[in-house]
Amino acid sequence: MNALIECIPNVSEGRRDDVVEELQHAALSAAPGVLLLDSTSDRDHNRSVFTFLGDGPSLVTAMGALVDAALQRIDLRTHQGAHPRLGAVDVIPFVPIKGATTADCVALAKELGASLAAKHGLPIYLYEDAASTEARRNLATIRSGEFEGLAKKMQDPLWKPDFGPDAPHPSGGATVVGARAPLIAYNINLGTEDISVADRIAKAIRHISGGYRFVKAMGVKLEARRQVQVSINMTNYEKTPLHRVFETVRSEAERYGVPVVGSEIVGLVPQQALLAAASHFLRLEADPAPAVLENKLLELAFKDKESAAEKSS
Amino acid sequence: MNALIECIPNVSEGRRDDVVEELQHAALSAAPGVLLLDSTSDRDHNRSVFTFLGDGPSLVTAMGALVDAALQRIDLRTHQGAHPRLGAVDVIPFVPIKGATTADCVALAKELGASLAAKHGLPIYLYEDAASTEARRNLATIRSGEFEGLAKKMQDPLWKPDFGPDAPHPSGGATVVGARAPLIAYNINLGTEDISVADRIAKAIRHISGGYRFVKAMGVKLEARRQVQVSINMTNYEKTPLHRVFETVRSEAERYGVPVVGSEIVGLVPQQALLAAASHFLRLEADPAPAVLENKLLELAFKDKESAAEKSS
Repeated sequence: MNALIECIPNVSEGRRDDVVEELQHAALSAAPGVLLLDSTSDRDHNRSVFTFLGDGPSLVTAMGALVDAALQRIDLRTHQGAHPRLGAVDVIPFVPIKGATTADCVALAKELGASLAAKHGLPIYLYEDAASTEARRNLATIRSGEFEGLAKKMQDPLWKPDFGPDAPHPSGGATVVGARAPLIAYNINLGTEDISVADRIAKAIRHISGGYRFVKAMGVKLEARRQVQVSINMTNYEKTPLHRVFETVRSEAERYGVPVVGSEIVGLVPQQALLAAASHFLRLEADPAPAVLENKLLELAFKDKESAAEKSS
Repeated sequence: MNALIECIPNVSEGRRDDVVEELQHAALSAAPGVLLLDSTSDRDHNRSVFTFLGDGPSLVTAMGALVDAALQRIDLRTHQGAHPRLGAVDVIPFVPIKGATTADCVALAKELGASLAAKHGLPIYLYEDAASTEARRNLATIRSGEFEGLAKKMQDPLWKPDFGPDAPHPSGGATVVGARAPLIAYNINLGTEDISVADRIAKAIRHISGGYRFVKAMGVKLEARRQVQVSINMTNYEKTPLHRVFETVRSEAERYGVPVVGSEIVGLVPQQALLAAASHFLRLEADPAPAVLENKLLELAFKDKESAAEKSS
């Protein structure tokens, strides 16, 4: 089976449906092996997030075509939206899914960044695992000042881009390209209306205030449910697993006499994150993934696909 | 996506590798859409178990071809092995996996049974969910007396076969065909050498002695590990889920001051059985299956396959 990598471009257009479709179409028709798993547009944010899946080279080709189309159709000088952004194509992370490593994704980010800079004169910043310095790991830091402050920010030698010119692309700004582990958005709902309980638990589990290395979290009020929520981003579920975070939230909530009412996964989740939770609680002695019937099917399906590709080439 | 059904023929040959391969080949070449997920031969039992996957009509075609080949190559008059058996092809269960119901599988069992009886003069008993009477639900009851006692057993009007003649096929005996829910073989290992603890817990959870409706269980000594095991067959994981059985075993073991050391899944397991365990312990508010990335891939892979099939037909 070929390496499987996810690529999740965030583009600064969430209102003109025809443009959103054009960008998807450009990516998919440039690289037929690439699949579109999800597409979500937000009108308030005026932003769309696409989830593509494929092998490395196909994704680089697809992203090249998507950026071509986006630079033709999106002009940040007239763009407005609630979400912070630096570029017409704002962020492009590569995420290893199966048979690929973070290092593979860093290499793809650099290859794509260099090629976009050369072709379009587009400044590129590398972030997260592809970052050239610690200061550039964090997307929020790179993006602060947004498109409107970019020309000034780039005059600072500290903010010289990793590829491309030291000035923004006139209509396209700059693009942040990188590699990161799969992210899981995971919320735990508490049987209380007291937001301070959710806030304190969020503080207990998040990295920045002394919690788990790969957890970002905040307290959120769920008005309609009359409950509060610990809203969590799990930035590396292999190193900080779901079940450990759940158990810590449960134990911290107990300390306030508050029950965990339920939890929810937002968006996609790698199967392994849930199998690891099942393994933990059932005390399984071996990773159950190879025994999962659907995984046998998936292997066979991809074997078929590869042999079909071999026959036609 | 077409219905996905598993079909798991058990044949009375586990020593002659060439015969085992012939049978597999016969099934697969008769129905190209059918996949072989697993093949396990046991020399002591002199028996092989094949796990095929496909849609209903393809599986009926494949099983027809497998029985053809088996009747030519296996003669029960000279067959010896530790495992009880009634026929050259001993048992053929159909198991619904995806987009198929038990009723679909019962219909397939009847179709296959009628066709095997007509073509080969092979007596067929229907079992489990396809059984014509309660007495025939249980495979062990149908098989008692084995091939050697079959001619005599069939003289009893109670044991008139569901299809075919009232006398055994000379070399092939009779075949038991049926439909059942997916079965999970699940073992829970206990931190004690006292087999009576495993026996008592097995008794507590198994249906026959007052436990869960879809659990068969027995105590087993693990000499090398100096532990004992509750060895479990989960005959319907949707109605009696893994996590409930695990929690009951844990609580019963605690009553004897014995820890659950680990657990293991033997053979294949439907993804949903493990996702249900994760859901239970993480208190997930929604079924996570639609959010699992690999399931999106599987959907796409089967969509590709179907459209390829449409193009070629």
